[in-house]
Amino acid sequence: MPTLSEVARHAGVTAATVSNVLRGRGRVGEETRLRVLDAVKALGYRPHLAARALAEGRAPTIALMVSSIANPFYPEFALAVERAARESGHFVIVCNTNEDPATGRAYLEQIAGTLSEGVLVTNANLDFADLHKTEARGAPVVLCMWERPQEPPGLHCVAVDFRLAGELAGTHLVELGHRRIGAIVGSKVSGIHAARYQGFLDAMTQAGLDAPESHLRRAPDTVQGGYAATRALLEAEPGITAIFASNDLPALGALHAAADLGRQVPRDLSVVGITDIQPAREARPALTTVAVPTAEAAELAVGLLRELLAASPDYVGAAESAPRVCTTSAPKLIVRSSTGPARAQ
Amino acid sequence: MPTLSEVARHAGVTAATVSNVLRGRGRVGEETRLRVLDAVKALGYRPHLAARALAEGRAPTIALMVSSIANPFYPEFALAVERAARESGHFVIVCNTNEDPATGRAYLEQIAGTLSEGVLVTNANLDFADLHKTEARGAPVVLCMWERPQEPPGLHCVAVDFRLAGELAGTHLVELGHRRIGAIVGSKVSGIHAARYQGFLDAMTQAGLDAPESHLRRAPDTVQGGYAATRALLEAEPGITAIFASNDLPALGALHAAADLGRQVPRDLSVVGITDIQPAREARPALTTVAVPTAEAAELAVGLLRELLAASPDYVGAAESAPRVCTTSAPKLIVRSSTGPARAQ
Repeated sequence: MPTLSEVARHAGVTAATVSNVLRGRGRVGEETRLRVLDAVKALGYRPHLAARALAEGRAPTIALMVSSIANPFYPEFALAVERAARESGHFVIVCNTNEDPATGRAYLEQIAGTLSEGVLVTNANLDFADLHKTEARGAPVVLCMWERPQEPPGLHCVAVDFRLAGELAGTHLVELGHRRIGAIVGSKVSGIHAARYQGFLDAMTQAGLDAPESHLRRAPDTVQGGYAATRALLEAEPGITAIFASNDLPALGALHAAADLGRQVPRDLSVVGITDIQPAREARPALTTVAVPTAEAAELAVGLLRELLAASPDYVGAAESAPRVCTTSAPKLIVRSSTGPARAQ
Repeated sequence: MPTLSEVARHAGVTAATVSNVLRGRGRVGEETRLRVLDAVKALGYRPHLAARALAEGRAPTIALMVSSIANPFYPEFALAVERAARESGHFVIVCNTNEDPATGRAYLEQIAGTLSEGVLVTNANLDFADLHKTEARGAPVVLCMWERPQEPPGLHCVAVDFRLAGELAGTHLVELGHRRIGAIVGSKVSGIHAARYQGFLDAMTQAGLDAPESHLRRAPDTVQGGYAATRALLEAEPGITAIFASNDLPALGALHAAADLGRQVPRDLSVVGITDIQPAREARPALTTVAVPTAEAAELAVGLLRELLAASPDYVGAAESAPRVCTTSAPKLIVRSSTGPARAQ
């Protein structure tokens, strides 16, 4: 659905003018009024559908819990959730837990079932016990971006095959002739990037290649984390010709480290990430990555939550019923400019 | 204040374990328990102060209205607001208006004074009339990042001298010997970047330089917008040796355009932005920009809102009392690698 801003841009007026025309308020010249109405028609804008629902006090609000609003993935995901939610007249409030389970618990207790009808949870580092309690109070919970479709979490969830994402990234590097491949993994051994790293190891095994511990660095899931880990890795193992990073942020850090070490990408070093966040597309060289279907996951999550809400007040939490698992379509390799053939040693 | 995650990292355990230790729940070995308590002490962690307040139903929630969560400035600002809010036990819920006044109005009507005690508004494209109505219902409103300290908006606000930011950017380019300087402005003539462009023009006037209309492009306030505008500008005016962009996002787009046009930065083209968002620091070449005091603005805004809340229930809206204007310290030029001396023609 087009936004009011898009209507305004199309008509060459301000958003306030569009709003005035649609509400019959303010002083707007006839020619401008007609131009705005033409733009409304041309774009198929439906004024205030969701806004009206909210103002009428139907409290059609969804809470989206994110672990770190500073990680650009989450704002992108929040935007996709909003787009999907708007279709059913739902508004989204974003709660940032800063990876603190106690903060997350407090948000859940304050918001779920009162201000918000239901809760979408990304990897917000929450206790599952708290999520079950939220469900028991009658507010459905959907986990988004669950990383292991084969091991459902006991809660309703949208799952993405992140093991496959890791395998696609690893296979891409192998097919380019790389043999000594470094891995930057943005979580602990049992953490949320474990499935991605397993996929990478699967690709290496399939190719009969070694993935020694000395080629692995665990690092914070940030640009800075990837930067430091890549510098350390390349200094310790200068024969490495490619880097697999379990997320785009550390992959972008790897690009910066290569630049600062005087290694040209992709001639001297190939780098591949996972997710396809916007900065990956905007980097120079643009980052090769395995895109996960973010918008699709958001749509599935909102759709699932909507079904659960429609079933209430007969709603029973996932603990009492069989939790639903929706799996997105498969991640896809996007080849850009950060990967190339391995140089002959 | 350190987070639970930082305590966990310091102790080498999971956040859930730290939580269990602090609440005396779960099975945790004595050695681990002591390690966690040591980490709590070492970092000065104060457990759950804010979380407890929220769970006790004191509803100490602040709503932060942002115009576009996809613009990385707003998540950075949200994080700074959260840090400041946590000190007084307030939680923050983020509402994204997508630049739609009707959406913003609906959020205000639903949330302000009910779920949230007060409202912080960044440039969310809201009708001032709606903000006055919110105040009339007893929920204080503080405008953050107001762009013209000399022209208060009739609402409580935190102002930043953005005209000065534009002047500092322009003066920097002039001092490097640039004479033909392009300007990419991320808003309409009367829009929120007007003061920044005025500052740039002031710098040009002071130096006795021309800033002809042909050197100006107005563009969407995005990387893509800056990219397209820079390409168009450099094709029409190849003699331009430097670009002033009214915001970091279009400045980053200018860097990409220069790369794609084969113009080396800063040898062939200097680029300066305004704000100092994280991608500016992470770009290669790193972006020269005029940093605005984002964290300070967030602290001032939360502090002002807290004062207004403390004055309630005797609170009267800004329409009835004299609106407060807090001005941040001055923006500062940060010279990085995207600007250099003008080449002799």
